Amino acid sequence: MDITSDIHSQHISRQFNHELEELKTHLMAMGGLVEKQVQDAVRSLLDGDSALAERVVDNDRAVNDMQIKIDDECTRVLARRQPAASDLRLVLAVIRAASDLERIGDEASKVARNALELVENHDGSRGFVEVRIISEHVRKMVRDSLTAFARFDTELALQVVQEDDQVDSEYQSAMRSLMTFMMEDARAISPVLGIMWILRALERVGDHANNLAEYVIYLVKGLDIRHTDPDDLGDEVRGDR
Amino acid sequence: MDITSDIHSQHISRQFNHELEELKTHLMAMGGLVEKQVQDAVRSLLDGDSALAERVVDNDRAVNDMQIKIDDECTRVLARRQPAASDLRLVLAVIRAASDLERIGDEASKVARNALELVENHDGSRGFVEVRIISEHVRKMVRDSLTAFARFDTELALQVVQEDDQVDSEYQSAMRSLMTFMMEDARAISPVLGIMWILRALERVGDHANNLAEYVIYLVKGLDIRHTDPDDLGDEVRGDR
Repeated sequence: MDITSDIHSQHISRQFNHELEELKTHLMAMGGLVEKQVQDAVRSLLDGDSALAERVVDNDRAVNDMQIKIDDECTRVLARRQPAASDLRLVLAVIRAASDLERIGDEASKVARNALELVENHDGSRGFVEVRIISEHVRKMVRDSLTAFARFDTELALQVVQEDDQVDSEYQSAMRSLMTFMMEDARAISPVLGIMWILRALERVGDHANNLAEYVIYLVKGLDIRHTDPDDLGDEVRGDR
Repeated sequence: MDITSDIHSQHISRQFNHELEELKTHLMAMGGLVEKQVQDAVRSLLDGDSALAERVVDNDRAVNDMQIKIDDECTRVLARRQPAASDLRLVLAVIRAASDLERIGDEASKVARNALELVENHDGSRGFVEVRIISEHVRKMVRDSLTAFARFDTELALQVVQEDDQVDSEYQSAMRSLMTFMMEDARAISPVLGIMWILRALERVGDHANNLAEYVIYLVKGLDIRHTDPDDLGDEVRGDR
């Protein structure tokens, strides 16, 4: 290879790396927006702020637009660069991650719509404690899974995967106590159902964060753990099988 | 190009087409299994057949395995064939579709788990009519979206997208009448909630079928309609804008 073509190919590879970094940057920006959507949706309920709830519903369009943009970028990179091995895995992981972020956005929007109804009917604050606890937990999962993605940090990703079980049990116990409220007071049925939908949406946010974390592990280890028992995960990821 | 290399490249392209066809075939097989899972899950509730419900929960593993296999195949095709344009779109659509089918499998499994509980508690048949109607509707959507995928049939895909709104309104009206049951009889709360979770899962099956249909349109028209208002869709897809 002569010097000119060597410089040329270095240039291409630098350009390509830049494109891959851009993909990650855009994914992180989308993640930041989506995390804020979840936070605002929950805050609109807890503060009884219906204007904020409406803003969250409106902003979902921006989330959707970001996904389409990231998808287009990924498709272009695949078509033009034809990446292999770990670069290919990165692009596929970004496509998947953007799809989960978009669904987190949908869940935030559902939370906001239910909050709007609850706020407008002055439905009291039954279940607010549970909503606050679970929402903080799943928001942490979203944040950590994005950090794990940005840093290719499999230990942190693993932590997120294992946290998902905790959220599930918090969710189950919240649902049981909400059901008791319903049984004690028929007038509570409709508002409590609203809270149940919100909790269900938040629990799904946790599921999507869990997916994000799994992509990180796939990305770094080339290991597909999507359907592995969480208890067996540590060994597989750390490679001591 | 001499004759040998011409034959060689024809051979490669035939081989490549064969691989793409295989991807579609495997996706259809996965779709068939997933559709049966939904059907069996609902039947386990309506017939009070807890053994069938357990079988559905167990079979979810087979669905998950199929997704991993299809994903691996797609990644291999992307790495080895480096497809461009419509072939690239096909592979990406298969990856996305397999992910939606896997989630339909999850929903079927949720239906079965709730059915199991309802059957074991002999919880009567409140809401069964609604479950039957909505499940038939979403199963048709799944079937049609797969057929549309197999035949690259955008008209059929469009029909599925438009049907999703109908399912949503059936779902809303079912939820309202179930809430009335709860208010009339506190003992009905727990079983009716079980039915509500089942309906919610079925409604999400419809959402995933809707996604599948959108991929078909993306595939054929290169048009991303994921976040387009269904009312404006006909024109865009038929190209009379």
